[in-house]
Amino acid sequence: METWRINVRSQKLLRQTAPDHWEKLGGRGLIARILLDEVPATCDPLGPFNKLIFAPGLLVGHMLSSCDRLSVGCKSPLTGGIKEANAGGSTALQIVSLGIKALILEDQPTTSDWWIIKICADGVVFESANSLAGLGVYETAEKLLDRYGDHNAISLIGPGGEMQLLVSGIMNLDKDRTPSRINARGGVGAVMGSKKIKAIVFDASAGRKAPIIDPEAYKTAHNIFNQALLEHPQTAIYRDYGTSAMTKMANSMGTLPTRNFSNGQFEKAEMISGEFLRQTLIDRGSPSNPTHSCMAGCVIRCSNVIADVNGKIEVAPLDYETIGLVGSNLGIADLDTIARINWTLNDIGLDSIDIGAALGVACDAGLMKFGDGQRAEEILQEIRNNTPLGRIIGNGAALTGKVLGVRRVPVVKNQAMSAYDPRSVKGTGVTYATSPMGADHTAGQTIRAKIDHLDPKVQAQTSRGAQINSAGYDNLGVCSFATFGFAVVPEAIRDLINARYGWNIGTDFLQVLGRETLSLEREFNKRAGFSPADDRIPEWMTQEPLPPIGSVFDVSNEDLDGIFNW
Amino acid sequence: METWRINVRSQKLLRQTAPDHWEKLGGRGLIARILLDEVPATCDPLGPFNKLIFAPGLLVGHMLSSCDRLSVGCKSPLTGGIKEANAGGSTALQIVSLGIKALILEDQPTTSDWWIIKICADGVVFESANSLAGLGVYETAEKLLDRYGDHNAISLIGPGGEMQLLVSGIMNLDKDRTPSRINARGGVGAVMGSKKIKAIVFDASAGRKAPIIDPEAYKTAHNIFNQALLEHPQTAIYRDYGTSAMTKMANSMGTLPTRNFSNGQFEKAEMISGEFLRQTLIDRGSPSNPTHSCMAGCVIRCSNVIADVNGKIEVAPLDYETIGLVGSNLGIADLDTIARINWTLNDIGLDSIDIGAALGVACDAGLMKFGDGQRAEEILQEIRNNTPLGRIIGNGAALTGKVLGVRRVPVVKNQAMSAYDPRSVKGTGVTYATSPMGADHTAGQTIRAKIDHLDPKVQAQTSRGAQINSAGYDNLGVCSFATFGFAVVPEAIRDLINARYGWNIGTDFLQVLGRETLSLEREFNKRAGFSPADDRIPEWMTQEPLPPIGSVFDVSNEDLDGIFNW
Repeated sequence: METWRINVRSQKLLRQTAPDHWEKLGGRGLIARILLDEVPATCDPLGPFNKLIFAPGLLVGHMLSSCDRLSVGCKSPLTGGIKEANAGGSTALQIVSLGIKALILEDQPTTSDWWIIKICADGVVFESANSLAGLGVYETAEKLLDRYGDHNAISLIGPGGEMQLLVSGIMNLDKDRTPSRINARGGVGAVMGSKKIKAIVFDASAGRKAPIIDPEAYKTAHNIFNQALLEHPQTAIYRDYGTSAMTKMANSMGTLPTRNFSNGQFEKAEMISGEFLRQTLIDRGSPSNPTHSCMAGCVIRCSNVIADVNGKIEVAPLDYETIGLVGSNLGIADLDTIARINWTLNDIGLDSIDIGAALGVACDAGLMKFGDGQRAEEILQEIRNNTPLGRIIGNGAALTGKVLGVRRVPVVKNQAMSAYDPRSVKGTGVTYATSPMGADHTAGQTIRAKIDHLDPKVQAQTSRGAQINSAGYDNLGVCSFATFGFAVVPEAIRDLINARYGWNIGTDFLQVLGRETLSLEREFNKRAGFSPADDRIPEWMTQEPLPPIGSVFDVSNEDLDGIFNW
Repeated sequence: METWRINVRSQKLLRQTAPDHWEKLGGRGLIARILLDEVPATCDPLGPFNKLIFAPGLLVGHMLSSCDRLSVGCKSPLTGGIKEANAGGSTALQIVSLGIKALILEDQPTTSDWWIIKICADGVVFESANSLAGLGVYETAEKLLDRYGDHNAISLIGPGGEMQLLVSGIMNLDKDRTPSRINARGGVGAVMGSKKIKAIVFDASAGRKAPIIDPEAYKTAHNIFNQALLEHPQTAIYRDYGTSAMTKMANSMGTLPTRNFSNGQFEKAEMISGEFLRQTLIDRGSPSNPTHSCMAGCVIRCSNVIADVNGKIEVAPLDYETIGLVGSNLGIADLDTIARINWTLNDIGLDSIDIGAALGVACDAGLMKFGDGQRAEEILQEIRNNTPLGRIIGNGAALTGKVLGVRRVPVVKNQAMSAYDPRSVKGTGVTYATSPMGADHTAGQTIRAKIDHLDPKVQAQTSRGAQINSAGYDNLGVCSFATFGFAVVPEAIRDLINARYGWNIGTDFLQVLGRETLSLEREFNKRAGFSPADDRIPEWMTQEPLPPIGSVFDVSNEDLDGIFNW
């Protein structure tokens, strides 16, 4: 496998054989290694010294169900620390078929021109993207597919990334050519924008499938994994409802963010539930199973397709996180409104979690009324139009709170919390507080752990295990929902990796990767200036009881500070 | 001397004898001691756990020339670290006459009412300030003087502090009852606003002058100090020109911030010089010496009074820092425009340095053209009107840069640099980088040191000495300009302190105080999460040469990190 380094100033490509000590790292772990070795931790994240790294996971390349995810990383302009954001879609598969282990964008142009990077087996070509500047993600993707052909994978930014908004992401085509799979968090899109790259087109038509050293053993392990996944009850739930199945569970546990995290239950939760959503889509004439998959080979198919009363597609997917942050958190109970907002956020190329949280803060500041979806849509137009208000909200919840003078801001390390209030699922709160990524449920979700989620004493250990596993899976390119299968047959990870690479790793590989990755990330953040003071849930959440349960976040600082002492 | 603790929620006063170990600290040092002992360093600076401390310097109380300054401190909402901001005017003198060593505002009300705290020898009374909410500083001060009488001292906030803007200050009456002496930096006004206190009225009519243990020795030392000050050539310069005398010197050294710190010389510097200002005022019929003093007893009288062509007073004083940041830094060469902007900033109660820097950043973002004073005045109205753009600019340069996506932002620890570009006066740059206060020339100015200001190797030691001395003087209540006198007769400090308090301190007292203060402040910041990564000049200033000299900031990180290793 090779490292491709592209200097975006000189537009030169440097191809190198990936060094040996990178071999057993992929995705998030490889990104951490490269950033720690090559990027000054104190650099301006939107300046020339930051690097933007695209790294597929170690299992990417063979359409294993839900294991073809792409990690993108850099120093985050949002958190000021290390950042990896992963996404489904078709990009990672093509990167691996091109024989690329890590694609690294370096330096910064000195002119204002926008560029497309076309990547194929022969090398890279820069083509002007000036005619695409300012266009939304959907229109840009369509034009790029027209121009370069449907067989390509594309990673691109919207106007949000061009404006270097701190919560802008990078969009990727799903397997059906819709640019909706987003490396969402921490402003990776802003870093791509700072390098003046509007899109990267990956053409693997002259590439080849990644080799498998022991195809028989691989096939056996693959079957074992697939069966475990198919038999898992969670898989069927995701297939029927998508991630929106979570709404009712979160509401019942009192952790559904409601009206800027002022309540853990939403009186209209039913109307934004997965069950209601599914029935609505069926009533509108959608097929009885209105979900699809974002990656070829995925048997879970969690991605729901939202069509309006006339059958016109509003957005796909509509995920629980967006429902929580843009729905209940804003007091909005209308799924079509939420879907339209989600489409617009995708089109501008923004993280719906952080913008939903920012709008909640804006409600507390009096700039919008809870429940006023039309006002929310107006504000999104302000973001698109680059107005002062648009720039405030478009930079996410932390900056919005600072600028508008709101104290009740649900962020850690400047990144907005996902749709789980940490006062009633305190283990996820520990993850929010301590993850090197900032608040992010995917860094170590604990809501399904068989523990008392309100007991502050048992959260740190649960979060630690979840964070290690999550960091491990993010080295492999494994979707969170595929982990339900691997949890049943953990040896399948060992067998798949050994069969593919001819290695001799053990069953603890996942944890070894996870711990190494977290250690590298913590070290980067330490050099960037992070300290235990950054590993905290906001003060107001330790003081203000969350209705209806009435709990505060009360995991001790000692527990938080000890979480990475393996 | 007593500590007065006022709980702004319960409106109760607790009077205590100040503890022994506070005895030999005053002003800035005492604030550091109290904050370190009593305020959790990681607390929300605008929440109930922060405290706002008013502490006069140790020499305050006897109208020694320029030695009656007031320190105000808290955890800064701007920097997230410790903050002390000092000001002249009449407040500190009255606080000492009331026998108060430290006035500490604690806790936070839960209602939206605004309050005046009336303080007299008997205790404190809370009176409603709801009728004053939203009023500018000048009108508020006038109403308060009408209501309470001309003999009071007043500390108050403007609409900026009410809005909790992060660069809002606290205004104090000068000896002529004009509310223009500002504890300017780091958002102390926002903390006062977070405690819902619009004004504090100090009535020392039933107080008494602070005792002097050895009046004869005191008088002798006083005369020696006064004579040294009067004879110093700098005193005459300040008397003639005010601080605006600095403009030409800064310009000639290539350190005058021009067009958002893109140049160190301004082609129209002559038009904003002290010489031009003085001649203009004389031509307009002002007396030939158009300066006055802000504190009773001051022989320097650096405070200039700016009158328009009709003799109407535009603002007083117009200081060099404002001329640099609002003038050359915005490409504005008209002193009347600068004076009007300064008046408005005073009236809203904002730090003119940080707002000037923010407007410079806004110019780079295309929201204003360099040189367009009318647009600057419009933006100030937006601040007053609490619009989204107003809130961006009104929160200072660091947030403005973040929100508007500008990389060229002249801040350290989120606080704007003063009117000395650190690339051509690198010692002041070392102070900007390493001071626990964030960028602030008063924390350790080096421009008058007899060194090569461009040689990176000799700056750290110069800044260290300046920072120690400055921190020491800020314990005493001594104005920067009075230090010229003490520098000639340093034993006068020892003699004044020993005579007043009956102590037996040595000539190194200033440095002992300075080192102790800096150590306390560094410890607070460490607990708040600061690290060496925070002690840096922005990356772009290390990369982008400053015309016309062409220098970058290149003092080594080792030098920066070693500065407080005594």
